[in-house]
Amino acid sequence: MTLPEGYIPVLNHGFVALLDSMGNDLTVVNSARVSFGKRHPEMEEGDAQLINYLLSHRHGTPFESILFQLHVKCPIFVMREWIRHRVSSFNEYSMRYTEAPEEWYYPELDAIRVQVGKPGHYTYEPAETGLAERTQRRISATCYAAFQAYKEMLDAGIAKELARVVLPVAMYTEFYWTINARSLMNFLNLRNALTAQREIREYAEVIDGLFATVAPITAQAFIDNGRVAP
Amino acid sequence: MTLPEGYIPVLNHGFVALLDSMGNDLTVVNSARVSFGKRHPEMEEGDAQLINYLLSHRHGTPFESILFQLHVKCPIFVMREWIRHRVSSFNEYSMRYTEAPEEWYYPELDAIRVQVGKPGHYTYEPAETGLAERTQRRISATCYAAFQAYKEMLDAGIAKELARVVLPVAMYTEFYWTINARSLMNFLNLRNALTAQREIREYAEVIDGLFATVAPITAQAFIDNGRVAP
Amino acid sequence: MTLPEGYIPVLNHGFVALLDSMGNDLTVVNSARVSFGKRHPEMEEGDAQLINYLLSHRHGTPFESILFQLHVKCPIFVMREWIRHRVSSFNEYSMRYTEAPEEWYYPELDAIRVQVGKPGHYTYEPAETGLAERTQRRISATCYAAFQAYKEMLDAGIAKELARVVLPVAMYTEFYWTINARSLMNFLNLRNALTAQREIREYAEVIDGLFATVAPITAQAFIDNGRVAP
Amino acid sequence: MTLPEGYIPVLNHGFVALLDSMGNDLTVVNSARVSFGKRHPEMEEGDAQLINYLLSHRHGTPFESILFQLHVKCPIFVMREWIRHRVSSFNEYSMRYTEAPEEWYYPELDAIRVQVGKPGHYTYEPAETGLAERTQRRISATCYAAFQAYKEMLDAGIAKELARVVLPVAMYTEFYWTINARSLMNFLNLRNALTAQREIREYAEVIDGLFATVAPITAQAFIDNGRVAP
Repeated sequence: MTLPEGYIPVLNHGFVALLDSMGNDLTVVNSARVSFGKRHPEMEEGDAQLINYLLSHRHGTPFESILFQLHVKCPIFVMREWIRHRVSSFNEYSMRYTEAPEEWYYPELDAIRVQVGKPGHYTYEPAETGLAERTQRRISATCYAAFQAYKEMLDAGIAKELARVVLPVAMYTEFYWTINARSLMNFLNLRNALTAQREIREYAEVIDGLFATVAPITAQAFIDNGRVAP
Repeated sequence: MTLPEGYIPVLNHGFVALLDSMGNDLTVVNSARVSFGKRHPEMEEGDAQLINYLLSHRHGTPFESILFQLHVKCPIFVMREWIRHRVSSFNEYSMRYTEAPEEWYYPELDAIRVQVGKPGHYTYEPAETGLAERTQRRISATCYAAFQAYKEMLDAGIAKELARVVLPVAMYTEFYWTINARSLMNFLNLRNALTAQREIREYAEVIDGLFATVAPITAQAFIDNGRVAP
Repeated sequence: MTLPEGYIPVLNHGFVALLDSMGNDLTVVNSARVSFGKRHPEMEEGDAQLINYLLSHRHGTPFESILFQLHVKCPIFVMREWIRHRVSSFNEYSMRYTEAPEEWYYPELDAIRVQVGKPGHYTYEPAETGLAERTQRRISATCYAAFQAYKEMLDAGIAKELARVVLPVAMYTEFYWTINARSLMNFLNLRNALTAQREIREYAEVIDGLFATVAPITAQAFIDNGRVAP
Repeated sequence: MTLPEGYIPVLNHGFVALLDSMGNDLTVVNSARVSFGKRHPEMEEGDAQLINYLLSHRHGTPFESILFQLHVKCPIFVMREWIRHRVSSFNEYSMRYTEAPEEWYYPELDAIRVQVGKPGHYTYEPAETGLAERTQRRISATCYAAFQAYKEMLDAGIAKELARVVLPVAMYTEFYWTINARSLMNFLNLRNALTAQREIREYAEVIDGLFATVAPITAQAFIDNGRVAP
């Protein structure tokens, strides 16, 4: 898979791309300063401190003036967590209208983990090599078989929207995502976190980096404040 | 499956239940009348007409004062469409924390349809009996095999959140849903419609009925206005 | 002014009333437990702890299943801050359609304060008696004169929506407010706080009490967690 | 008042400026086409038709990928209607922190109207010249007197947040507004309409024009579809 420029690969078939953005650190500063009727043409001394103050005192609205449009491709089980973030806009690929491509999540060996400990108190540990290999093959074979069933149903004329019900949540989907910086920080707080599932965390890590290219001072202040969204 | 009282079966393993509600037709009337500083203890002559007026002129906020809490069990592919309705609250069953039960969507023979015509201009037609039977068996066998793979990975100690990736979108999930009447009418407009997928439409039909038990005059006005949400 | 039962007076002409609610502490618990596919008929040991856990770990959605409908009368300058809380529904009295009653905010002597210190570092102190009395009279006389101008314009046939432009933000308005417990905690965090303007804080204090009558364990957990909304 | 470049005057002291935007007609097309897994580098034949189709069938999410940041100065009574549009972000000037400038809405003679007819069935007609002149003077004198009272209270040390209660809703305020095209069309539908108050309509007319500079095909489709938001 050769990705277009600016597309960053994630997992075996996924990607993240920042297509567009609006606003930056200065927009936050000016949005906040409107309370005092002031507007700066560029960042000034003290402005970074103001951004820090806004974040640490949870004055969130100025951060709603930075916007991002991202293009994302990820497995359905990742998308199912992603779409919980309601304060944002999604336009997603539809398997009602379009045939699913033959692409599913295939975990690397080091991504295959066992769950150790009692409910509520377990940790994830790497699976030993033999188990990891067997699991990888099992996932692959199961997804392959489901995809064959899907294709054969389509060939027999069955409606796409019905045939897809056999497809596993490992299948990839694709969407455009429009979100402001306040809501994005909430996403990053929850998804680029140790409690998040490893696979969505890989996406969140990439997005953390993209965030910093658009609004470096805000991104740094977010880190300095313990990654709590305002 | 014996369902508790008030639970209405949908599809082979699903259900919808109205757990609680707040407000009714009178709440809408009083919410609207506050513009004029008035409040009625009960519905009066002309109030049904007012509700009609509000709906047809798309004055939506008074309808945000009726709330519903529903309990829903549906296949994942249905949930994926449902959760698009962002102006509402979801608390969903998680297969990260809990083992998936052995339940998936098994379409009745008459629900198995073929897609006839070119992209963008097709219709759905019932599959002929032989095809329908083969499809039913194929869906069943594919879901069964995926579920076996899932179980065996769990038995080998693989983390639930990883093993689940092979599960098909036909698997059932469960959620509580809190939504106001304005947003609910938008849901009913889109999902109890000929363009909606048959399976989610079955849920929307049931919810249409529940809506009418809470706010009969509003539900009737919604129908009279061509089922357009205000 | 004799208020109906359940209406709590605030400031000189205002009030707050809890008209209706949906859900309680148990709803929160069950909304959270759906992740594990469980539902309790009543509160059990450990449930209070779960609510604490949800709040302190900022798992907010379960709190969206408790809803409140309030009836509020407050000055316009208070309403202007109130309506910032976008995740809620407002139906407000309109001076475009209805004549404003002769009621404005008249601060008690002990509510009249001076601002001491430089911008950004000032405190509010009680005004000395003479100044407080003069201020009270000045507010009263200015509002009275504006209201006379308003009435005379109305008597001359001027449109209500235009004549009202002379009315001060001390005038009272009235609204119904529908809000869930998550969003309400955000309101209480910001408005029942030392940094909030005294007048809106008086409303927020009353609502804090009403919150506790509907969901006492959640309200206590909110306090125990430093009044931070999840 | 000399306004910066790009600032469009509205009413006697107000303005609207489009500070920034993200996306355009092509963004809408690509957002919609993701359902089919397609992306175009530029507008093609049939794309205008697609935008029309999306609008007329109320497929709203693709329009959420166009964003606007506006800077607005308007009277408080206009702002009070504006802020009803909850799906957008506001950062407003605060009279708690900053002294109000000596600026209020002064209607032109031809903006002074009388209300003719019974409640619910009235029309607005221009006031005859004598009445218009007297009204203009009355509004001016009342606002002036209120502003003097405000200034004198400030000079005596009274807290800004308290002194402001005498200020009329004709006073100007200022805010930054971030909004997507879907929500903007809802604003334009309600506020650039005959039923809207004349003063907010003047703002909405200007914004209608700015909308067309960013997304001309969408703006035209909006008009062609009877100005109903999707």
